[in-house]
Amino acid sequence: MKPYHLMSKEELASLKEQLTAVYKEYQGKNLSLNMARGKPSSDQLDLSLPMLEILNTTSDFNTVDGDTRNYGVLTGLAEAKQFMGEMMSAPAENVYMYGSASLTLMFDTVSRSYTHGVMGSTPWCKLDKVKFLCPVPGYDRHFSICDFFGIEMVNIPMTPTGPDMDMVEEYVNNDETVKGIWCVPLYSNPSGEVYSDETVRRFANLKPAAKDFRIFWDNAYCVHHLYPEKPAQILEILEECAKAGNPDMVYKFGSTAKVTFPGAGISAIATSKANLADMQKQMNAQLISHDKLNQLRHVRFLKDGAGLAAHMAKHAELLRPRFEAVDEILNKELAGLEVGTWTKPMGGYFVSFDSLDGCAKKIVAMCKEAGVVMTGAGATFPYGKDPKDSNIRIAPSFPSLEELKLAAEIFCVCVKLVSIDKLLEA
Amino acid sequence: MKPYHLMSKEELASLKEQLTAVYKEYQGKNLSLNMARGKPSSDQLDLSLPMLEILNTTSDFNTVDGDTRNYGVLTGLAEAKQFMGEMMSAPAENVYMYGSASLTLMFDTVSRSYTHGVMGSTPWCKLDKVKFLCPVPGYDRHFSICDFFGIEMVNIPMTPTGPDMDMVEEYVNNDETVKGIWCVPLYSNPSGEVYSDETVRRFANLKPAAKDFRIFWDNAYCVHHLYPEKPAQILEILEECAKAGNPDMVYKFGSTAKVTFPGAGISAIATSKANLADMQKQMNAQLISHDKLNQLRHVRFLKDGAGLAAHMAKHAELLRPRFEAVDEILNKELAGLEVGTWTKPMGGYFVSFDSLDGCAKKIVAMCKEAGVVMTGAGATFPYGKDPKDSNIRIAPSFPSLEELKLAAEIFCVCVKLVSIDKLLEA
Repeated sequence: MKPYHLMSKEELASLKEQLTAVYKEYQGKNLSLNMARGKPSSDQLDLSLPMLEILNTTSDFNTVDGDTRNYGVLTGLAEAKQFMGEMMSAPAENVYMYGSASLTLMFDTVSRSYTHGVMGSTPWCKLDKVKFLCPVPGYDRHFSICDFFGIEMVNIPMTPTGPDMDMVEEYVNNDETVKGIWCVPLYSNPSGEVYSDETVRRFANLKPAAKDFRIFWDNAYCVHHLYPEKPAQILEILEECAKAGNPDMVYKFGSTAKVTFPGAGISAIATSKANLADMQKQMNAQLISHDKLNQLRHVRFLKDGAGLAAHMAKHAELLRPRFEAVDEILNKELAGLEVGTWTKPMGGYFVSFDSLDGCAKKIVAMCKEAGVVMTGAGATFPYGKDPKDSNIRIAPSFPSLEELKLAAEIFCVCVKLVSIDKLLEA
Repeated sequence: MKPYHLMSKEELASLKEQLTAVYKEYQGKNLSLNMARGKPSSDQLDLSLPMLEILNTTSDFNTVDGDTRNYGVLTGLAEAKQFMGEMMSAPAENVYMYGSASLTLMFDTVSRSYTHGVMGSTPWCKLDKVKFLCPVPGYDRHFSICDFFGIEMVNIPMTPTGPDMDMVEEYVNNDETVKGIWCVPLYSNPSGEVYSDETVRRFANLKPAAKDFRIFWDNAYCVHHLYPEKPAQILEILEECAKAGNPDMVYKFGSTAKVTFPGAGISAIATSKANLADMQKQMNAQLISHDKLNQLRHVRFLKDGAGLAAHMAKHAELLRPRFEAVDEILNKELAGLEVGTWTKPMGGYFVSFDSLDGCAKKIVAMCKEAGVVMTGAGATFPYGKDPKDSNIRIAPSFPSLEELKLAAEIFCVCVKLVSIDKLLEA
C-alpha cells in the first residue's frame, strides 16, 4: 500500500470520495456498536455462573475464621488471603482482602493518605502540593482519583519496557511533592507493555525524596494472558523493594473483576506489614468486614493458582479471536498507509492505536456518528488531554465477533478519512 | 426485695459471702459466653440461606438496567432502590445503593465531607474544629468514625422520647462548628428508645448555624421489631425536613446486615437529590458499581415490603425469647434491690443496663473473669468514657437460650457483688 503522505492531493481527494460513500452507507445502517470499555462479553460472564451455586443451603460455612456468615474477620478470610496471595505473587501474610472492586481500594488508599498521611507523615490535605506520576497513555480511572483529590498529574511517557525510568527517577528522587506513581506493570492499560526486569529493579531502587512516596502497582491483568501457553512474567516487586531496602514503598492491587464478575468480585492489597497496619487503622473505623461469603464463594470456585489458570484459559479462548480480528482488520485496512500504529498485546483488555497527530478526537467523533462508540479521545491521559491528540483505546472484549469486525472496519474508514483531511489541509 | 442501700453493713457482708461462693463456682466452670456484640445467632443466619440459591446458572440476569453481571449502574439497580426505598420509607428516586455495609457508607460520607465539604462548603479538613453531637449512650462505631477524623464529640443525654432536643437545638442553631449528629431513631442503640413525633419534628425544624450541618439518621433497626404485631413507628424525617424548608439536612442510612447476612448485605442512603448529586461526585471516582449480583439476590429473595416483614417476623421469633429471658432473669435477680435499671426494648438488638455510679467497669471485669464477655464498659460513650461509669450494653442475640440464661445469671451475681462493695465502701 502506498503511504497516504506520498499520495498527491488528487489521489487523496478521489480516495476521500470513495471512502465517504462507504462511510455514509455505514451511517445509514443505524448501528449501535461499542468498543469503549474493557467489559467482558456475555460469554465470558457465563464461565463463572457455576460459582453462583457454590454456596447453598447445605454448605459448610465454617472455616478457620469461624462462621463466615456472621460479623467479623476484618482483614479477610485466611483462605481468601492465601488465594489472592497466590494470584498476586505475595505471601498470604502480606495480603488484606478488600471489597468488591480494587478501584475502591485504590481510591480509599489515596483518600486515607489525603486525610491521615502515610505511616505518620503529614496528611496530604495539609500540603500545598501533591503530585503523582502518570505513565501515559494510562488508565482513566487512576487519573480520576487524582483529579478528585486535586493531585497534580505529571505525564511520564511509556516505552516498550515500561515508563521512562530516567524521568521517573529524576522526579521521585528529587521532588518531595511527588507522592505516588500509577503502574499497570503487566499488559499495561491501554498499550499492553510488560515492564522489563530492569524497569522493576529501577522502581525498587528508587530513593524517594518523599518518605511517603508509594508505587501504586495495579496488577490488574496479572493472570489475563491471551496466550496462556506463553504468559509474560514480571519480577515480583514487593521482594525487589525489600531487597533494595524499600520494603514499604509499594502497594500491589489485585481483583477478580475480570476473572469472575466485574463489580461483584473480590479484591486485595499486598504490601508490607507496616503498610497493612497503617491501613488497618482506617479499616477499623470504616467497616466490620467485607463480604466474606463472596470471598468464600470465589475461593471454593477457583480453588487455587491452578484452578485460576484453568479458568483464565477459558477467558483467553474467548478473547483471543476478538483481539486477532481487530489486528487482522487494522492490518488489512491500514498497513503501509502510515496513518497510524497499533499494539498487538499478549494480554490485558486493550489495543492502543496512535493516529497521526491531531486526529484522534475527530476519528472518535466520526465513529460515533456512524454508531460506533469508542473511549473518548484523550481519556488515556491525565485531565483528558492527549498533547498530540493521537491515542485511541480500542476495547475488543465486549462485542460479538461479528459486531467487532464491523466496528473495526468502520473505525478504519474513519481513520482513513480523518487522515486524508489532515493531509489535504497540510 | 429489700433495697441494698437500706441493708446494714452486716447484712451486706453476709450477702457478699454467699454471692462470692456462687461466683467462684461459676469461675470454676471455665465458661466462654459472649453478650458483647449485636450478632445474629446461627439460627437467624439460617433463615437467609435460601437466598444463596436465588441466583444460579439458569437465572435471568437481565433487568431494566441491563446485564447485572457486568460493569455499570453506579448508583444501584432500579429494583434494589425500590426495595430499599420501601424498607427505608423513601421514594426510590431518593435512594442510592451502596456496598455490603452501611457503616462503610457512613464512614465514606464523613470522609467525603472531610476532604471535599458538603455541597460546596469548606472541606472539614480545612477547619480548625468540627463537632458532632452524640446522643448517649450510643453506638460505638459511630464514635469511632468521629475519632478517626478528629471530630470533637459532644454528649447529648437521651430521654425516653429521643435526644434532649433543647440541648440539640441550642448547639445546632448557635454553634457553626457543629456539623452533624448521630441518630438511631427507632429502637435506639443501645437503649431502645423510639423517637417521638415531636422529636422528629424538632429535628426537621432545626435552624443550623452551619449550612453543612447534617443529621446522620442511622435507621439500623427500621424493620427489626421484636413484637411485629405492634411495631413502633416514627415520623418520616426526609418529608418532615422538606416541609420545614430543610430538604438537604438529613442522610438516612439503612442496610440488610441484620436482615440477611452481616457484612454481606446490601446498604443504601436515602436523601435529597442535591445530596445524592454531591455524593455521586465521589462515587464517580471511587467505583464503577457496587455488587449488583448481591443487590439482585436480595431483591429476588425478599421481594418487597411484605416479603421483608414476613422474613423479619421469623427473626423476631428467634430474638424475642432471648430478650424476654434476659428481662426475666434481671427481674428475678435484681428487681427491688435498687442496684440498677434496665430497658425492655420493643425492637433492635440491645438491652441497656445502668448500674450504680462507678460500677460498670468493675461489673464487666468481673463478668470477664467468670467467662462472660460483655461490651467494654464505656463503649457506648464517645472516647469510651462514660462519665458515670454506669452503662452496660447487653447483647442477647448471639448465644443460645441456655447460654444466654447462664450468662445473665452470672451478670446479675457480678452486679450484686460490685454494688455491695460500693455500698460497703460508702
